[in-house]
Order: sequence, then C-alpha cells, then structure tokens
Amino acid sequence: MLGSAAGGGYPQWNCACDTCRRARSGDPAAKPRTQSSLAISADGERWFLLNASPDLRQQILNTPTLYPRHGKRHSPIAGVVLTNGDVDHIAGLINLRESQPLSLYATSRIHAVLSANSIFQVLNPDLVQRRTLGLNAPVELVGPEGPSGITIEMFAVPGKVALYLEDAAPVLDGETEDTVGLRISAGDKSFFYIPGCAKLTPALADRIRGADLLLFDGTLWRDDEMIRNETGTKTGRRMGHMSVSGPEGSLAAFAPLGIRRKVFIHINNTNPILLDDSPERASVNEAGWEVGEDGMELSP
Amino acid sequence: MLGSAAGGGYPQWNCACDTCRRARSGDPAAKPRTQSSLAISADGERWFLLNASPDLRQQILNTPTLYPRHGKRHSPIAGVVLTNGDVDHIAGLINLRESQPLSLYATSRIHAVLSANSIFQVLNPDLVQRRTLGLNAPVELVGPEGPSGITIEMFAVPGKVALYLEDAAPVLDGETEDTVGLRISAGDKSFFYIPGCAKLTPALADRIRGADLLLFDGTLWRDDEMIRNETGTKTGRRMGHMSVSGPEGSLAAFAPLGIRRKVFIHINNTNPILLDDSPERASVNEAGWEVGEDGMELSP
Repeated sequence: MLGSAAGGGYPQWNCACDTCRRARSGDPAAKPRTQSSLAISADGERWFLLNASPDLRQQILNTPTLYPRHGKRHSPIAGVVLTNGDVDHIAGLINLRESQPLSLYATSRIHAVLSANSIFQVLNPDLVQRRTLGLNAPVELVGPEGPSGITIEMFAVPGKVALYLEDAAPVLDGETEDTVGLRISAGDKSFFYIPGCAKLTPALADRIRGADLLLFDGTLWRDDEMIRNETGTKTGRRMGHMSVSGPEGSLAAFAPLGIRRKVFIHINNTNPILLDDSPERASVNEAGWEVGEDGMELSP
Repeated sequence: MLGSAAGGGYPQWNCACDTCRRARSGDPAAKPRTQSSLAISADGERWFLLNASPDLRQQILNTPTLYPRHGKRHSPIAGVVLTNGDVDHIAGLINLRESQPLSLYATSRIHAVLSANSIFQVLNPDLVQRRTLGLNAPVELVGPEGPSGITIEMFAVPGKVALYLEDAAPVLDGETEDTVGLRISAGDKSFFYIPGCAKLTPALADRIRGADLLLFDGTLWRDDEMIRNETGTKTGRRMGHMSVSGPEGSLAAFAPLGIRRKVFIHINNTNPILLDDSPERASVNEAGWEVGEDGMELSP
C-alpha cells in the first residue's frame, strides 16, 4: 500500500482540524499518510500501480522494492491502472515521465480526460501504451516486458465524475465508466479494490460476497463530517463516497457479505478512524475491518 | 528553498546513475533534493511560492513555517508566481486545491496553458485569482489578505516551450512569455530568480550586473552530460538550459558581472555538483557559486 489517504493526504496542507494537528505534531497514534495508491505484483519483479497519486515520487522513494534494478535507467513499475479521473488518482502520472516504457490502463472515459489535458503528454506516446479496458471483461495486464500473470476486471460502481469535470448538476451515483472498481486475480488468488464508491448496490454486494480481501473507500466516518467540523461544505454523498458509520454506512452494509479480510483505504484527513486511539477506530476494528496504512503489505 | 532539483528530483525514480545511487544509499555527501521551488516573504507571515513543484505537498510538510496558523483551514501561502509551463513548475498547483484563497501570477501564455488543462480547475475560480503579468513591468504581489510588500518584475529569458507543448521543430532560445526570470524586491533589497535559461544574452547580463543575489539554472554540468552517461538522448541546449561548465557555461559567463552571491538551483540528478565531495562541486565553489539545497534560507 503506497498511500492510504484520500485527496489532500494526511495531514492536508491547509487543514488544522484536530486529526491533522495531531499528525503534524508527530503523535505516534496519528500516522501521516500519503494519497491513495497500491502497487501490485504476481512475481515480485514487475509491479503495476493501481492509481497514481500526487505523492508518487515520495511513495517510490519510500519503497525500495520499486527502485531501479538493472542498467542506467529502469523501473520495476510496468504500468498503471486508473479507477477514475480524480486528481488524487491521476496527477501522479506526471511523475512517470523520463522516457520509461509503461502500460497505462483505463476506461475510454478516463483516457479521454487524459487526452484532453496536454500536461499528460509528458508521457511519451512512443513509450507509454495507453490501453483501453471495457467493463466486466477480465484482461491480463501486459507490461513492456510482456504478460504479468495478473488479470484485472473493471466494473462500474456508483459515483460521479471528477470535481474538475463537474457541470452545474452532476449525477451523484451514476454507474458508468467514470468510476470503477477492480477485481484483481493471479492464479487462484483474487481481491477487490474499490477506492471510491457512493453506495453498495445489490449488484455490487453480489459481486463481492465471500471475497478473500476487499480494499474499500473509507473517506468519511459520517456523511456530514466536514460540515460539522467546519472544514468543508460538502457531504460525503455529494463527493461520491458512502460513509463508514450509520445505518447506510459500510460497516453495516458489508457485515452480511462474508468477506474474509476488509481494509479501509482512501481515508480523508478529517476521519477519526485515522487515530489509533479513537473510539471510531475501535468500532471499525470490532466490526472486523482494518484501517489502511502506508507501507502495509497484503496478500489475498 | 523548498526544492533545488530539476524535473524528476534527486534521486529520479527510474535513474540508476552513480549520483542517484549514492543518494538512494543514504550517502551523506549525496543529499536528496525535491523539485525546484522557492517560498518568499517580506514579513514572515505571508508567503508566495515561486513555481509549484510536483513535490509541493512533501515540501510543505518539511517546512513548519508553511503550516496552517489560524482557525480550521488556513495557509500562510498567499499565492504562486510561475516562470514557465514546465511540469516541474506547475504540477504542484494541484496540491493547492481544497478551497483555499490564493493569487496565481503568470504571463498570459502560461495562464493559457493552465486554462487548456481542465485538471487545474481543481483550483476553484471563486477563490483562486488568476492574475496576468506582462514583461518588464514591476507589480506588487497581492494575496487574499492584501498587498504583500513584495514587488515582482518578469522578464523574458532565452528558452523554449514546455516539453509537452513542443511541436516538431521547437524554437530553442526564443525570448518570449514562455520562459521568464524574476526580479524580486522588497524595500531596498532585491534578488534574481532564473531557474531556466538557455544562454546569457548581453541584455540579460546588463540586467543582473552587480546584483546582490542570483539564483540560477544549474541543470547540467556539461551540455552532453545525459548522452555521455547513457541516461538520455538530449543535450542541455535542446532542453533549454545553458550548462555550468565550459567556455560558454555559466561559471565563465557570470564571472565578470560582479554579483555578490550566486546559487545554483534546478539541478538535474545527473549533475556531479550535487555531490559534496566531487571535483565539480569544488570548481563551482572556487568560482564563487553555492549549490542549492532543500531547506536553505537566503536573504538578499
């Protein structure tokens, strides 16, 4: 797990909420976290990033596994898979410039966003293969050195377009190519990665029932959290995220699904589950969930 | 000095040149550096960034002076001044999202680049004032809380458009609004900030002659450095940077100009002046230059 925080990271540059202040003060129960991204591998040699956070340069420096291994220019990073067009998931792509061969996987909607932003042309098209994935169609990831042994299936989850693409009345829980979850598999192992999701639909519940491992959107503890602590004006629902607590929250919604291991990721700086000593953290743990941390290593 | 390295930072994610390997190994003579940016202030309260690097989130975390000071959401950062459209100078703008009032200064050319990239709409136009500066016209920087006491003058320096905006035959040493230097002044103090410059023209020499402090483009030691060490195919000249050494390099060119203090910034990961124990560092110091480091504090 390269990064476990939502957009802005933890602490967030301009936030002085209690949770952020504890992180800035070096409190060991308030561990800083970089923005949401995962690196996955089937062989330990070739790695794919699930989303590319603005903190990617720092995340690579923190992860010796991702250092160059051969010759003068090299990276174990063979490619990137994007789940939406949010800044915290795509801005890190610009860190992957410098003439390195890569595969870049996304839906056609997200590729269109990248194409419309010339800054992403720093990814040299002679070296970076932009590969379009459809929904509900498992595909083996292929890097510059060939097949990876990892299969990805993208599926739509309820969500909205990225903030900077919103018009006056954005649809808040559409199920389109704008926001996807991933089923990742290698051999007989698999897991689900869903960093942004506005609600658990019956179809999504059926899809993930009985999974071995789920990494899921832990943005907010409660829907009006940012309004209540005066750090923002939007609800979680308005931002495309279901909350952790409450009768419609993820603790309640996932309880009957028989998932073996559940980990919250993409956690906003205001969410009290970030604090190792909070009652909210205790509730989450009692409900059988873990709270993601940078540097965590997981295998399904 | 928030960051002193050129694009990619030091070490660079995919580079295993000797200089990068020493930094990754923790060698104390090979200090890691983040990407080029400066924070300036006349009063210690309100700060303006000169360029916004992709490492900005980490740079703010490393700089307690830039932590929030009042209320739930605040930043001492009142604005940003951009000198060109290079990724390493603009990508950090996306870290300044989250509903914070700011002033964003650039030439009309660079504002057009930002406007053409929807990702920068994360900077809410209701809160972030985009102010256009002309060339050779000193203007006092104004932040959300009013005038800053800092005056900026932009002037064209020889350079080229950003890599991702290049066409098939880019002009390599145009003097346009695409690449500018800055004269920064407050009261009777002033300094020059020129992070990218393709050559020292007679007009530029006249402008900076006798300055108290100059921060200047130290990208490469020699023009063919990246070709010689097999990390790239381009010369410094092709990338819009004059080199440090050689008969046309900056050590020779600036020697007769009577500048009191000279500091290299925007230093590429391949440049041996990064190493505290290199003969090239010794040459630079003998010629009266310093080599920029993250965290350096300067006053003219």
